[in-house]
Amino acid sequence: MSLGEFDLINRYFDRPPRRATLGIGDDCALFSVDPGMQIATSCDMLVEGRHFLSTVAPERLGHKALAVNLSDLAACGAEPLAFTLALALPRADEAFLDGFSRGLLALADAHGCELIGGDTTQGPLNICISVFGQVPTVGINDASTDLGALLRSGARAGDDLYVSGTLGDARLALEVFRGMLSLDGRDFDAARMAMELPQPRVALGLALRGVASSAIDVSDGLLGDLRHILQRSGVDGVVEVDAVPRSAVLRKQSLALQRLCTLSGGDDYELLFTAAPDRAARVAAAAASAGVAVSRIGRIVPRPESAAGPRAELFDAEGRPVVHGHASFDHFRA
Amino acid sequence: MSLGEFDLINRYFDRPPRRATLGIGDDCALFSVDPGMQIATSCDMLVEGRHFLSTVAPERLGHKALAVNLSDLAACGAEPLAFTLALALPRADEAFLDGFSRGLLALADAHGCELIGGDTTQGPLNICISVFGQVPTVGINDASTDLGALLRSGARAGDDLYVSGTLGDARLALEVFRGMLSLDGRDFDAARMAMELPQPRVALGLALRGVASSAIDVSDGLLGDLRHILQRSGVDGVVEVDAVPRSAVLRKQSLALQRLCTLSGGDDYELLFTAAPDRAARVAAAAASAGVAVSRIGRIVPRPESAAGPRAELFDAEGRPVVHGHASFDHFRA
Repeated sequence: MSLGEFDLINRYFDRPPRRATLGIGDDCALFSVDPGMQIATSCDMLVEGRHFLSTVAPERLGHKALAVNLSDLAACGAEPLAFTLALALPRADEAFLDGFSRGLLALADAHGCELIGGDTTQGPLNICISVFGQVPTVGINDASTDLGALLRSGARAGDDLYVSGTLGDARLALEVFRGMLSLDGRDFDAARMAMELPQPRVALGLALRGVASSAIDVSDGLLGDLRHILQRSGVDGVVEVDAVPRSAVLRKQSLALQRLCTLSGGDDYELLFTAAPDRAARVAAAAASAGVAVSRIGRIVPRPESAAGPRAELFDAEGRPVVHGHASFDHFRA
Repeated sequence: MSLGEFDLINRYFDRPPRRATLGIGDDCALFSVDPGMQIATSCDMLVEGRHFLSTVAPERLGHKALAVNLSDLAACGAEPLAFTLALALPRADEAFLDGFSRGLLALADAHGCELIGGDTTQGPLNICISVFGQVPTVGINDASTDLGALLRSGARAGDDLYVSGTLGDARLALEVFRGMLSLDGRDFDAARMAMELPQPRVALGLALRGVASSAIDVSDGLLGDLRHILQRSGVDGVVEVDAVPRSAVLRKQSLALQRLCTLSGGDDYELLFTAAPDRAARVAAAAASAGVAVSRIGRIVPRPESAAGPRAELFDAEGRPVVHGHASFDHFRA
């Protein structure tokens, strides 16, 4: 193996700093936020076989590793600034690194998010990205006046519940990889794109600041992520399950599979959010400005005083209760 | 296994936010730096068998995982603020998590550095920490007026070269674990402490702002890390190898082993730094205020115009050249 640790960094990841005061190559990277802004940060670790399959093209893996982190910034309404990359590789594989860095940096450039530092080491394939964005430094949790971060805790009874894009295609592709069903080539490619090249809804998140009362990105499955909003907001939810948007490919499948994929699929990276009914026009305007479809899929209701925890009631289009037994994803229980 | 992903986070890692506007539990964490400050950030990934042995006590591993990151802040002269933790575990092992989180959070508390977010997943044991500190937003690389970050690039010909603490004990312990030598119980415990419980020199780094012209933390071995300073500063170095400070335990070993451990050992997490000779008294005052010994081990000299790259000349106490064939650590070549 000819490629050393520092060659590897220089060849694939080191570019002149733009926003950063100091980029790759010192003990720390240095960067600033704009006046009146605070830092929003999140990190996600991707493990082979757990978060991605060994069959994924390196370029798509580079894209996805950053996309899932940008999706967290989107869910906070934060503007991307910079990220660090820690990478453990079994060996310094140049073909892998070439594709991985291309996919990673293309998405980074598309969002003006600069790679400012990181760590590379030998070990089982593991990708850990920490992303930094900025949001205004204003009081949080006051949806009526707040132009600051979007939080999980701001949903109020009476709010509408929305989701962006379509859900379930990533899970549909996973079921194909698992050998549980087969799709024709074009349908499989479309579903696989959803799984391997998710598009973080950064522009929508920014446009929803001051409009949405709460938000989260759908990574573990709609119902599981909705539960986080309900839990932190102290409310309950009502979801019209067949109003959850899905692709033409997924609509060809059985209703049971559609519901599994849309409600408990995971890996969607769409935004799930709430807004007061009098903001419906502003939600539509935010969606239009971001170029992303947004669908109303339910509403927020008060939690009964006797309730032990949050509850989402599910109904079909005719208003009949739907029983859905699938939980969301838990890395230590799945 | 009874412990789920969210239980795990709640039980071991979730504490009320102090500095952060928003801590663990949303899509992002939010925090601010003080007026006039910018963010210093670094990340390190630790892989079992590579950065630590499976024999290490979880409490010490938790300490070390944060210590190596705080050491990067120290080398920048940054004040620790917060960190994120991404953790891949083969299984949710409560005994491991209990010890690991105790060691981690005890060191965090000692440095006022708050755990504000992270990620947990199932996978081969991997610990990735990103740490955030603050340094003044002032011009960099002007050591005469600068109270900003300490960089690798500020060393100038004529500067003295210093290192904090003692070097080489971590490597000595590693040689014992590798079966290359044996130590009596008390000596082994002392060397093992150096390897497993390194103390990041945060207070010294802060005290050296405006005093040192360059700094780095010694993680890959003294000569390898010195090379980074020389490379980025465009200078050469002269090191008096037997002036490199070492413990009483290491002094019992052969001179050859002492030199191997002190010059190319790695895992020391002491600060290697340069300062102009007229600042010697201020270096001593910084060391005293931080409660850490600091030793002068050499000096910075001009790089000949014909030189292809940086060079460190090594001499013994009698001024005779020393040949030292050991390179520093490279994760993809070691």
